[in-house]
Formats: sequence, structure tokens, C-alpha cells
Amino acid sequence: MPAKSQPVTRHVVSINDLSKREIEAIFEIAQAYLDELGDPKYHYRIGQSTDIGSRHILASLFYEPSTRTRLSFETAMLRMGGEIITSDDPAVSSAKKGESLADTIRVIANYADIIVIRHPKDGAARLAAEYSPIPIINGGDGSHEHPTQTLCDLFTLKKKNKRLENMKIAISGDLKGSRTIHSFVYALARFGAIIEPMPAAGMELPHHVDRRLREEFQSKLVSQRTPGSDDGSIDALYVTSDKPHQQSLFAAGEVDEVDYGFFIQKKVDAVYVTRFQKERWSEDQQQPYLKIDAKFMKDAKYSDASVMHPLPRVGELDIDLDNDRRAVYFQQAAYGVPIRMALITMLLGLKKNKSLQTFPDGFAKPEHPIYRQPIGMGLRCVNENCISRDPSEQHYAANKFYIVRGATPDTGRLRCLYCETDIEEETAKNFVVADTTKHHYVRGLEPALHASDDRLRHLIIYESEADAERDGYHARAMGRVARAAN
Amino acid sequence: MPAKSQPVTRHVVSINDLSKREIEAIFEIAQAYLDELGDPKYHYRIGQSTDIGSRHILASLFYEPSTRTRLSFETAMLRMGGEIITSDDPAVSSAKKGESLADTIRVIANYADIIVIRHPKDGAARLAAEYSPIPIINGGDGSHEHPTQTLCDLFTLKKKNKRLENMKIAISGDLKGSRTIHSFVYALARFGAIIEPMPAAGMELPHHVDRRLREEFQSKLVSQRTPGSDDGSIDALYVTSDKPHQQSLFAAGEVDEVDYGFFIQKKVDAVYVTRFQKERWSEDQQQPYLKIDAKFMKDAKYSDASVMHPLPRVGELDIDLDNDRRAVYFQQAAYGVPIRMALITMLLGLKKNKSLQTFPDGFAKPEHPIYRQPIGMGLRCVNENCISRDPSEQHYAANKFYIVRGATPDTGRLRCLYCETDIEEETAKNFVVADTTKHHYVRGLEPALHASDDRLRHLIIYESEADAERDGYHARAMGRVARAAN
Amino acid sequence: MPAKSQPVTRHVVSINDLSKREIEAIFEIAQAYLDELGDPKYHYRIGQSTDIGSRHILASLFYEPSTRTRLSFETAMLRMGGEIITSDDPAVSSAKKGESLADTIRVIANYADIIVIRHPKDGAARLAAEYSPIPIINGGDGSHEHPTQTLCDLFTLKKKNKRLENMKIAISGDLKGSRTIHSFVYALARFGAIIEPMPAAGMELPHHVDRRLREEFQSKLVSQRTPGSDDGSIDALYVTSDKPHQQSLFAAGEVDEVDYGFFIQKKVDAVYVTRFQKERWSEDQQQPYLKIDAKFMKDAKYSDASVMHPLPRVGELDIDLDNDRRAVYFQQAAYGVPIRMALITMLLGLKKNKSLQTFPDGFAKPEHPIYRQPIGMGLRCVNENCISRDPSEQHYAANKFYIVRGATPDTGRLRCLYCETDIEEETAKNFVVADTTKHHYVRGLEPALHASDDRLRHLIIYESEADAERDGYHARAMGRVARAAN
Repeated sequence: MPAKSQPVTRHVVSINDLSKREIEAIFEIAQAYLDELGDPKYHYRIGQSTDIGSRHILASLFYEPSTRTRLSFETAMLRMGGEIITSDDPAVSSAKKGESLADTIRVIANYADIIVIRHPKDGAARLAAEYSPIPIINGGDGSHEHPTQTLCDLFTLKKKNKRLENMKIAISGDLKGSRTIHSFVYALARFGAIIEPMPAAGMELPHHVDRRLREEFQSKLVSQRTPGSDDGSIDALYVTSDKPHQQSLFAAGEVDEVDYGFFIQKKVDAVYVTRFQKERWSEDQQQPYLKIDAKFMKDAKYSDASVMHPLPRVGELDIDLDNDRRAVYFQQAAYGVPIRMALITMLLGLKKNKSLQTFPDGFAKPEHPIYRQPIGMGLRCVNENCISRDPSEQHYAANKFYIVRGATPDTGRLRCLYCETDIEEETAKNFVVADTTKHHYVRGLEPALHASDDRLRHLIIYESEADAERDGYHARAMGRVARAAN
Repeated sequence: MPAKSQPVTRHVVSINDLSKREIEAIFEIAQAYLDELGDPKYHYRIGQSTDIGSRHILASLFYEPSTRTRLSFETAMLRMGGEIITSDDPAVSSAKKGESLADTIRVIANYADIIVIRHPKDGAARLAAEYSPIPIINGGDGSHEHPTQTLCDLFTLKKKNKRLENMKIAISGDLKGSRTIHSFVYALARFGAIIEPMPAAGMELPHHVDRRLREEFQSKLVSQRTPGSDDGSIDALYVTSDKPHQQSLFAAGEVDEVDYGFFIQKKVDAVYVTRFQKERWSEDQQQPYLKIDAKFMKDAKYSDASVMHPLPRVGELDIDLDNDRRAVYFQQAAYGVPIRMALITMLLGLKKNKSLQTFPDGFAKPEHPIYRQPIGMGLRCVNENCISRDPSEQHYAANKFYIVRGATPDTGRLRCLYCETDIEEETAKNFVVADTTKHHYVRGLEPALHASDDRLRHLIIYESEADAERDGYHARAMGRVARAAN
Repeated sequence: MPAKSQPVTRHVVSINDLSKREIEAIFEIAQAYLDELGDPKYHYRIGQSTDIGSRHILASLFYEPSTRTRLSFETAMLRMGGEIITSDDPAVSSAKKGESLADTIRVIANYADIIVIRHPKDGAARLAAEYSPIPIINGGDGSHEHPTQTLCDLFTLKKKNKRLENMKIAISGDLKGSRTIHSFVYALARFGAIIEPMPAAGMELPHHVDRRLREEFQSKLVSQRTPGSDDGSIDALYVTSDKPHQQSLFAAGEVDEVDYGFFIQKKVDAVYVTRFQKERWSEDQQQPYLKIDAKFMKDAKYSDASVMHPLPRVGELDIDLDNDRRAVYFQQAAYGVPIRMALITMLLGLKKNKSLQTFPDGFAKPEHPIYRQPIGMGLRCVNENCISRDPSEQHYAANKFYIVRGATPDTGRLRCLYCETDIEEETAKNFVVADTTKHHYVRGLEPALHASDDRLRHLIIYESEADAERDGYHARAMGRVARAAN
């Protein structure tokens, strides 16, 4: 870990690491690069280079295949006059010798000035950031996040619509497996938006994203029960306002057919199409997938809707739309260069008063208390693809969780600090909290929910009573009596 | 596809995309780079760098293994002060997710200023060029072409012999599978040459190359029937003059034993050896291979012959020749750098009045009419390795063919626009031409051979009557009667 | 091979290719880079770039996985303002087509100004150097050497201890398979050192390294028979003085329990930990491995001992030491950049009077006579992983051996010039020397041991009489009589 005397190093692991003001500052710089270096034939392409980044080195660490993300980062650095070092298949390098990500990062941090990392494990970029004295940019970590894609998406929307606030965006395809979508909807909600999910069957937004949108990003689920449906299937929209005082305009309840009619009829500003993430689904899980084509886009609702896609596409977006004036997906890809130039510029502090560190509103401090115990001690993340579950990282990652308080004072859940997976308190038996000073435990998360940071250090959260007892804790008196009665 | 308002973007997919004047202009610039930046110790090596290409980016997209071609392109760009982005194993990147080449190219074209592509499929570089707003250089596409290798070969010959015209070149080895050889012999023929094939058994020049040399590049096949041979095997030379009026010096017939004796006795200017393309042949097809060594080169005919090889070699060229004064293969490889610098310079227009676009004689417009129908409509290319047969390209490539007229007005063939494979009209049944306005079809290619471009748009060429009928066409009246008789 | 008119090209294949004076000159330049370009926050990190190497190209040829070595070389070149071309998986490039290393190097030498090569075969870098007109740096060849790692190691020691001479270094782990250790101990011995081996079971220093330390680097093995041990196991130290006249301080015999007590009690300057080279051992050979942790380091002997590790680590070095003031392994990795910058600077002659070629004491000429015969002629290297045994190199590598004279005038051994494996004269039958002028042979190496270079050219060394006879040699008269008696 960096020496404590270092100034704070900013990382971009999640789109939520950036404040709205910071996102807008990135866009201002990106636009300035486009104005200065853009290709006059293509208003979305950087066609010339500057030397603002000269004598700086970007390290590309790609533990997973990528062409466009890696090459757009490298192009961004080269267009700034900087240099690149690349490891694009670490499966055949140090990682194969069993080296931990934490060690690799600390070595590479002595070579480069900034690192972009792509990794198949959720939360890998956060772990990298914990150990890096130089800025880490998340180039995609498992199914978790891909924040620079989201920056490109938002910038594309802003360029088309002259604003970021209160747009209506339809999102289509695999809403479950796409890390791009998850980063995107949180960002949209922060700027205020109507989000209309159009998932392929079985690829709905995950429960945790749904709840986070509602509980943490002030989105209302405005929905309509499909008439006559017995299976309870619903059509729904997420509605958020950028002006919190207008929230009262919406009905308080979450199912409101009048509001639904109003919002569903509004014209759509963009249709965001995503690829079926074939590599994340087994073959027999594969479902029919909505194809966005000229016929679909004929609906009057879409007459001014941009068609967006993070690319690559594999059939879900018809090529006949390529010459449609609403198609912006190649521009969207091209914006990757100025956007990444702007982000690198701010992380390296290359423009005066434009460093991410000097922004008055800074980046959002996590609002949740953090519980931490060494790996091997108590509960671990339930997400098997979490970087904290990787055997080669067990000495480097801790069991670290945000304590997220629920709707009532006695409910709550844990959220993995790396992969942001939520662990639910479904029943009283789900969590067992042991007190290392008193050597006993109680069922339920309650003792941890409102504990001070100091008190948290003396608590260990287990998955079951058996786990706590295995470590030598015994149930608090009453609990023991209760159990004796069984 | 590029917006229509763009100036024409030049690509180098085939050596035939360059006029003779343009090839010579490339050589002048390459020589200027050698004079200016060459290493005084090695007159064929670029040992210094300039900054003429600074702030430009070359993208290397290598879908197939390569060390020397990729590194020589990258060296060329770096020696010019430019930058490089590299994807040297796209099998593990976007292509793995099923992305089409057309989409990849359109994205990368937003990052780089020029692209070099190597691809295992014949015709891939032509498809890439169709979609690219920036120049595409073919770094080798399947068994099709490798034009920059040919430029190095010709430049090596010119440096050794002070001329390009009317040389006698022996070509040895695998003349069938070597894309290098195919590009090379067309270029030689254009400058006038005597070409002496010395193929390994079963690795003769393919029929289509033979015919193209004779029919389109004005080569005469001057040959001698091997005395007493029953199997009709012949020794033969291709003879072309750079001065068309001298063609009459040759006998009109294609088999002429007197001419053969004259040409075969001429001293050879270069022996061009090629590697056995092991990866393109199955194990049981492998044949004994002529080894070029000091003993072979002792023949007086070769006393001044340069020994050339595109490298890598695997045994067909003896290392004892490495120190022979006639061995030029390492120089030939080294010339790759100045030649590629010169080509990039002209494609990017970095030297005033030296852009490929400003050359008065321009590049050869295809002289053949083009027939085009969407993939799935009518006949497709018969070459299974053609990029147009690749499933992921089916929405991007069309069934596009040059209509090549034969020796008589009623004969002809089709040539795939991508891989340049010829489809023969062997019998009347080979082609069936349907008329989309009259809803009938006729056998034979004749209706398409002399059709105007406008008329061509209303014709669909099928492989068989069954195919045409399946699409709802019926035989023209007379045809129907004939079939009724069966 | 380079033309004979070239100035001598220096290569760094073995740490022994550099004189002590040259090693110190490299360290002076490295320190100057650190002073000029180092990051003030980290006194071991290069944080800025210069342009001393601009317009020069480094080629990275990595035939074996590596992240840190490749990226630190590339960083070094970029921090100097130079450029890089990279082939980091030649398994999929020309090598796959069967190209020899000798040909690849001669081609790449026309592109770049300097080459760093990593290769799985022992001796590959020496073969590359034989064919390269530009400097070759060995980035690790099989189990043979890794000289730039050793330079980093020595520089780290020098920075910590303000001297290189007469340190006491404990070396722990896999002393058998680690090329890093072999380069390191030879270098330590040259500067004078007490080396304390702490091998994992079965991973002791190889016999040839032990003997070389003693016979060629003037180390004494000072040891103690473990009391009561029946298996003859011994604890031992290698002791060398940098002042040859002080060698007399040590007892002449190799086993001296009094000296052992003195040296073993001295405080240790550094504990050098190495990774278990999993990829070089089969699974059932794997043994318990000493773990260096805080507890181990509590011994007063280690109170000022730096903890070093070439990284990556896989469990043999506890991460709890990461924040220990004695831990220097991340600095050690970081020093890779200034050290490699300094080495490149000297090999390319970028600083006046600092070229490796202008050093008054030059590099050590091999002190042993060289025997050479073509591959296929007589004895070949016994090391199956030697580059000279690789089928694709058989036409390029010769059977080349140093003739190393033994303790008595009639004993000696052969040492492969590529991989430096020793071939022992265990018995009289081991070697058979044939005389090509007299057409007879004798048993034993003796005729070759003291032969002049001219005479050596007429001798062929065989492994057995049968081999010599197969080539048409017959035993010298007396020998024949002797054999007839059997």
C-alpha cells in the first residue's frame, strides 16, 4: 500500500467514483480536445496529436480480451504525446506463475504513471487501486463496471441532446450480464432520467441493480401490471428527477398506472442496445433476443431517438441502420479517444486546475460504514467471481463490506467493497455477529448496523452459528437458553 | 462506408492497385530515405529516424501470426516519428466475440490514421478497404496477395540490376500456395520479364495465375514438350516485353521450341526461392522440395543471379549461401523498412506532390464491369477461404464479381472482387442468369457478359436452374419447351 | 554473421561478460538517471523521461512469458525517449513456421538498434549474439542466466549498504532451478562475499555452480559436518575476498569448523529469497519450502538484513514483511528501470566516453581455448535444453566447447559455449579424441587439453569409441592391441 505521506491518488473504478461536476469537467476537456485536435471531416474523431502528455507512460494491463477498449486507451495516450507499455495477455505472463494482482500492480506502478486494467474478476480494479500509488482506471472488471464506456455513452448523449438531465432512455438486450448497462443506469439516474428496460427474456436487470436504483439513486419504479397476467409480470420504468424537490411530483407508491401511461408515451431520446454476452451464459440458457432494426425504429416514439451500442454487435442491431441519421454507435466508439484523453489528463493533473484532486466537490466518499476482517475470518463475499475469492489474492484482499442500512432501523445488508455484491439479511439466521471482546455471538446483523467504527473492529460477522462456534464463540446467554429448549 | 463527401482514400490491397509510375515513385522515396537515414555500414538498413510522420498513428491488425511483416511496418512508422497501436492476436479479442471485420475496421479507423491488416481469409483486405475511411495496406490475406513483399522484391531487384525491365527471374518452390509469388509474377510481367517456374512437384503455378499472366498481362507461354513424355508434362517460360510493339518478336503460338531454347539459355538475373507453406498443405501432400545451394548456383547461367527469398526459410535455401556475394535475402528483408516508410508516406500524403492521390496516371481502374447482389442472392464465390464466405461477414460483404470477357464474344467468367478467384463457364449449364424484371432465366453467362451497368443491376446469376427456380424464376419460353421434352 | 569490418559489438549474455569496472560504471549512470529523473516521492523510481535515446529502437523478443522483465526494458527505452517494437509470443509467429533464431535475429537487427531476448532454451542469447550485428541483451535464457536481474540485485545491495564488497548474503529457496541465483552468486563472488545457501530440500546449488564458484571464482567452501549426521549432510558457506592476498586468511582446507563458526555468526547483509520454479519441476518433486516471514527475520543476525526477492513470489515470502523497513523487493524491481536505462545507454554509446566499448579494462575474454566442430560431428552438448540441441538451430549452432583444465595437468572438462553446461571426464572412457590428420583416436580428453588452437582444429572429440569408429577412425596402435586382448 502507498506510504501514508502520499497525496491522495484518485482512481476511477466505478462511475460512482466521479461526482456529477467531475463528469462534466471531463466532458469539457474532451470537447476542448475535439475542437483543437478533431478531424474536420468527422466531428467526433481525434485526427491530430498534441504533446500535453509527453514523457508520461500509460500501462495497459489486459487480463481479458479486448481490442477497442485497449486500443482506444492507447490511442488516447499516444494522441497526447505519451507512451504506452502493454501486457495484453497476462494469462501467459506473471499471473501464470501465480503472482497476485496486488504484487503485479506495485511493480508496474514503478514503471508507468497511470494504469488501465481489464480483468475477468469482479472487483479486480478496486483491489488494484488499493495497492497502487498511481491512478488506476477500470477498463472493465468481470460483470461489475466499465466506467469509461459509460463516460463515452453520456458524452454521446450530451453531444446529441445538448443536455444530460432528464432524458428518456430505452435499454435493450442483456441487462443482466452487461457491466456497461449497470454503470450506465446509475449514471443516468444521477442526472435524472426515465429508463425504460427492454430486456431479453431472463436477462432482466438484476435484483441488486433494481434495488440500488430505487434505494440509493432515488429512482421510482413506475409500472403497470400487465392486464390478466397471472405470473405477476410487469412493465416498468425507472423515473428519477435531477431536482430532488420534484420527486414529489411522482406518486409515492411504486406501482402507478396513471404515471406509467404518462412516462411510457414520452418520446425516447436514445435506444441503447447491448450485445448478448454469449461468454457469460451457457448454451442452453440462450434466449430469443430483440433485434433493433429500421422497422422497430419506425415507431413515432423513436423518431428522434439516437441508436446507441457499446459494440461489438453480433446481430442484435441491424446493419441497415448504419446509414440512418439516428445511428450514433460509431461516433460513440470514436468518442472513446477524446473522453479517455480527458480522463487521463485529469488523473495525471496535466491541465492547471483541472486535476481530479483539485475539484471543490471532490469524489463521493462512501456513505456506508466499512466492516473489515482478514480473509479466512468470518463471512466472505458470496459472489464466486469476486476477486476476493481468487486463491492468489487471499493474502492481499480482506473480507471488506459496506454496511448498508435498510428501510427500517433493524434491517440492513452487507455490500462487498470489491465487487459490490449485496449479501441479504433474508432471515434472522443469515448473519451471526460475534464480539471478540466478550467472546459471544448473537444472530442477526443488528449489532453491526449502527456500530461505531471502533466497535466494528471488534465484531466478526459469520454466515452461521456453526461457523462462529467453530472459532470458539458461544451464543449470548439468552440464545443459549433458547437453543437448549430445542 | 465513408461519407460520400470524402476525397478518395487510396488503399494498397493488390500490387495491381499501383501503377508502374506509382511503384517507381515509391522506390524513389525509399531510396531517398536510405540516402538520408540509412546506416553507412549497411547500405540497405535504415539506422536513423526522422519526424516526417510524427503525430500520425499506424494500426497493426494481425489476425494471423507474423514477426517480420508486422515489425517492419511498425519499425517503418517509428523511424518516421509516428506511433503504433497493435493487435497481434485478434483471435482473442473482438473477433472472438463474433464481431465482423467491417465493424472492427470502422472503429479502428477512428483511432488511427492508417491500417495494416493481415488476415487468414483471401480477400479480407479488400473487404476492410470497402469500409475504411483511412488507407488500408494489405499485409497478406490468405493465399491471395502480399503486395508490400512484392514491392521489397522489386526494389531489391532494382538495386541489384539498376533496372526493373525485362529481367529473367527463376521462381522456385511452392508456386501454388505462396501469395508472395502471385503478387510478384504479375508485377514482373507488367515491367516485362522472362519468368522461369521451377515448382516443387504438385506446387505448380495455379491455373488462374497462368491464365491471368497470359490473358491479362500479355505474357507468352514459351515452352518445350519434354521429349518422349507421355504425360504431356512441359517445361515452359513466361515471356513478356515491357514494350508492347516488341511482342511481335515472339512467335504467336504458345508452344515454340526455338524461342524456348533462346530464352532458357539467357542468364538468370535472380533466383527467387520460396518456403514450403507447410501450414497450407496436409502432411500426406508434402513432396520433395528443390534445395537451392552452392552446387545449384554453380551453373554458369546463375553466375550473376541474385538469390532472393521472402523469408522465413525452413531448409529450401542452404545457409552456406549466406556469405555468397549473390545472396541478397537479408538485404531484401531490410528493404522492408524504407519501402514501407515510402508507402506510408505516399498514402498519408506526407511529402508534397508525392501523395498517391496526386499522381497523374492514378491507379488502375478495374477494367471489368462489376456484377453485385446481396449475399444469399444467387451465386456466391466458390473459394471456401474467401472472406465473403465467412459467416460473420455475411451481412457486410456482397456477392460481387468482375465480369471477365473471354477470347470469344460469347464466353467469359466471373472473378470474385474480394479474393479474385475465377469462376469458369465450363459448360452452358454452369451459369444461369435470371432477369428480375421479366421473371425468367436463361442458361449461360451470355446475357451478363455485355450488359450495361444499369442492366446488370436487374440480373441475378445462379449456379443452377434449380437455384433460380427456387427463387421463383422460370425458364424462358424455349427453355421450358426443351425441359418439357425430357 | 556480421561483416568483419564492423567494430566489435558488445552483448550482455552473462553477468560475466561485464568486468567489475563496467558494472560499477553502469551503476554510476543508473544513479545519475535516478538523480536527474527519479521521482522525489520514491527514491528508487524513475518518474520522468529524457530524450537521450530518441530515434533509437529497442526490439523485445520474448519467446517465453514475462511481464516485469519485458515491461521494465520497454519502460527504460521509453523513459530515454526511444521507441520499442515487441514480439511477446513468438510461439505464434515466425518461430512457428520453423525459422531459426539465427535468421530471426539477422532480420530484426535490420529494424532495431538493440535487442533484448528471452528464450526458454539455455544458451539462446549466446547464439543470438553470434549472429547479431547489434547489441543483444539476455533477458533470461532457460535455466542459464538473467544478467540484468543480477545488475538490479547488486545495485539494490549497493544502495542499501553503500558498498558491494565483502557482504554476507543468505540465499534461500530453489537454488537449483533459478537462473537468477546462478548469475547472482558468480557476481557476488567477484566482489568478495560470504554466501550462505539455505536451499529447499533437493534444490541445492547445482554441482557445476558449486565447482565453478570454488575453481573459477576463488570461493572457499567453509563448512561444518552436522554432528551425528550419518548421511553426510553439511552446512556450508562460500567465502571469497575481494582482495586476493587476503585469501590466505582462510584455512586452505575446504572443511573448517573454526572458520565456519566465525563466518556463520557474522550479521547478514541481505536475505535473498527465490520463488519455487514450479514450471521447472514435476508435481511429485515438489518439496516443503522455507517461508521467510517476520518470525524468521527476528533473529538478531538479520536485524539489518535487507529482504530481497526477484519477484514474482508465490508464498515463500510473507506479505506481512511488505511494510518492514528491511523489505526492499519492490525497490529492487523499480531499480530495473534505471539499471536497464544505464545498460542500454552504454551498449548504444549514448553518453560520451561511457560506451562499453571504450572501457579500458574491456570485457573478460574467455580464458579457455575453444574447440569447435560442426553440429553432427562428434560430441554434442549433454544438456537437452541447450539451444544447440534444438532441431531448428542445427545448421546455425556448432558443437562449441571451452576446454576447461582441471586441477591436475591431465584432467579437464568441456563447457558448452552456449549453455555453459560442463561435460565431465569421469572416466577414461568418457571422451575419445580423434585426429583428422592421422585418422586414429585415443581415449581420454588429454590430447585436447593442451593443444594449440591450430591443433584443436584437427581434433574431433567423441562420446565413445563406437562413435569414432562409425566415422572411420581407428584406435591408435596400442589401443587396438589392448582392445584385441578383451
